[in-house]
Amino acid sequence: MTLNVLVIGTGAVGGFYGALLAKAGARVSVLCRSDYTEVKQHGFSINSTLGTWQFKPEQVLAKLSDYQGIADVVLLCTKIIPAIDRVALIREAVGDNTAIVFIQNGVAIEAELQTAFPNNEVVSALAFLCCNRTAPGQIQHLAYGRLVLGNLPGFVSAKTEQLAELFRQAGIACETTADIVAARWQKCIWNAPFNPLSVLSGGLPTLAILQSQDALVRAIMQEVVAIAAASGHHFAEDIIDKNIDMTYNMPPYKTSMLLDFERGQAMETEAILGNAVAAGRQLGVPCPRLESLYGLMQLRELALISADKTDVTQTISEV
Amino acid sequence: MTLNVLVIGTGAVGGFYGALLAKAGARVSVLCRSDYTEVKQHGFSINSTLGTWQFKPEQVLAKLSDYQGIADVVLLCTKIIPAIDRVALIREAVGDNTAIVFIQNGVAIEAELQTAFPNNEVVSALAFLCCNRTAPGQIQHLAYGRLVLGNLPGFVSAKTEQLAELFRQAGIACETTADIVAARWQKCIWNAPFNPLSVLSGGLPTLAILQSQDALVRAIMQEVVAIAAASGHHFAEDIIDKNIDMTYNMPPYKTSMLLDFERGQAMETEAILGNAVAAGRQLGVPCPRLESLYGLMQLRELALISADKTDVTQTISEV
Repeated sequence: MTLNVLVIGTGAVGGFYGALLAKAGARVSVLCRSDYTEVKQHGFSINSTLGTWQFKPEQVLAKLSDYQGIADVVLLCTKIIPAIDRVALIREAVGDNTAIVFIQNGVAIEAELQTAFPNNEVVSALAFLCCNRTAPGQIQHLAYGRLVLGNLPGFVSAKTEQLAELFRQAGIACETTADIVAARWQKCIWNAPFNPLSVLSGGLPTLAILQSQDALVRAIMQEVVAIAAASGHHFAEDIIDKNIDMTYNMPPYKTSMLLDFERGQAMETEAILGNAVAAGRQLGVPCPRLESLYGLMQLRELALISADKTDVTQTISEV
Repeated sequence: MTLNVLVIGTGAVGGFYGALLAKAGARVSVLCRSDYTEVKQHGFSINSTLGTWQFKPEQVLAKLSDYQGIADVVLLCTKIIPAIDRVALIREAVGDNTAIVFIQNGVAIEAELQTAFPNNEVVSALAFLCCNRTAPGQIQHLAYGRLVLGNLPGFVSAKTEQLAELFRQAGIACETTADIVAARWQKCIWNAPFNPLSVLSGGLPTLAILQSQDALVRAIMQEVVAIAAASGHHFAEDIIDKNIDMTYNMPPYKTSMLLDFERGQAMETEAILGNAVAAGRQLGVPCPRLESLYGLMQLRELALISADKTDVTQTISEV
């Protein structure tokens, strides 16, 4: 059976993975907001380590109500930021047999969709991807691309296996797991320190952060591990060592949060950090470092929008 | 007896307090580095809430070895930053009967001078001052000015009383205390959260920080209180409430660390934060929030001097 896929959110992530599914034979349509005119006319140009090709979606939509047919899969690929209501964004496209698949960042981001669509398959997906949208309809895939998929609350459906197989046919690594929630917490072990530290440091890449603050990074990771454990997700003893070693061996990267910050775009502070802190508080797990980073990120975002800072002409000198 | 005072460090703090002592009748000389030519020729112009006057130092020195006479008091008013060796800076001016008075920021900044000058009076001073050096030799005093003086390790000498009396005669509030170390910790309760948060937030004034992160500010203050207590300095139960209330009632201020940051000048991260963290570690007092802020300030300073951040062209996207 050929899958009807509707991609919502066609930045780098949605454009790239949508193009892969189309390449593997799915009927892929896209909801485009800012890039509608360009994509409607020319589709997407994919410039990837997997090759260079054009992705012409089945339907290019300016609004969901224009969609013809019923989606087997809604593939949600937006950022998770307060300005985007994920449920409202996709509701119109969700039929009785539609699976909701989200390739998004963060932890504890499942309940919202599970609650809103209790009778639909909800599939959580993690991407390890280095990819940019360089212009409207222009997707540049630089490295990686691996996906991990799993149904909520914890199994793997036939449709999920079908999707995974399509991704593999298109040329990327794709795993399925019956414990995708654990996989999210595992990814959070890395994200929770490096994303906020990269922004709060004023733009340092991962290697410089680690070389200067190895102990702090480990202590933050330990808080995530403790929260994950309290929520039932236990990792191997050496999970932190492995994350640290991997980061020392990576080229110095800028995190996604830092890139958003530098581009003046909304950051995924809540999904990556706020939700982890909320889980820690709910479970009674002390997480003073995560709380400090979270508070600082809130201040950083406040400073971006605040006029307060221009009102101040005096200082109290503490010498 | 007329006091011979030699001021070392003639920015806003040294210029202002030196001018006050001269006004009250002391013989005040100054060591000037960057502003030597201007000050040698014209002295200091003081524009203060206490009035407007010229302060013509007895001697204006480009280097200490030019000093004629013996200083009764060396008044050290530089910032405390790694680039400045306080002991080396003053050594040549310290005679057998010279009292070393430092009006400087931070905690645990005493031992260095006590160890280097075991036979001299060492007097620790805290200033609550709003004052700027607007141009070479131009001092603008905007508000406050109160001083607290006390000898180390914990008494008040006749010379300290004499200095305090001169400051009072010049028109500012000046107290003496036999426990100046406790007074430093008390000031650190306010400095430790607000200074780094103002920089790391990207420039927020105190009120905006507090309105957004009341709980975090209190938790940081609590860590300072715990470290102070472990080192023998106990404060009233409501010390944190009082600091919070005072800050809500202050006009929104920029901290000294933020001003240094905005001016591209070295910040007193070690004196204000690093020394508190070191004391916590030494005393076995957990201070995860202070450690996080300290680590972040080190990263912020690293980013200022680092070329690393320009080397990075790729990103790993965590969606």
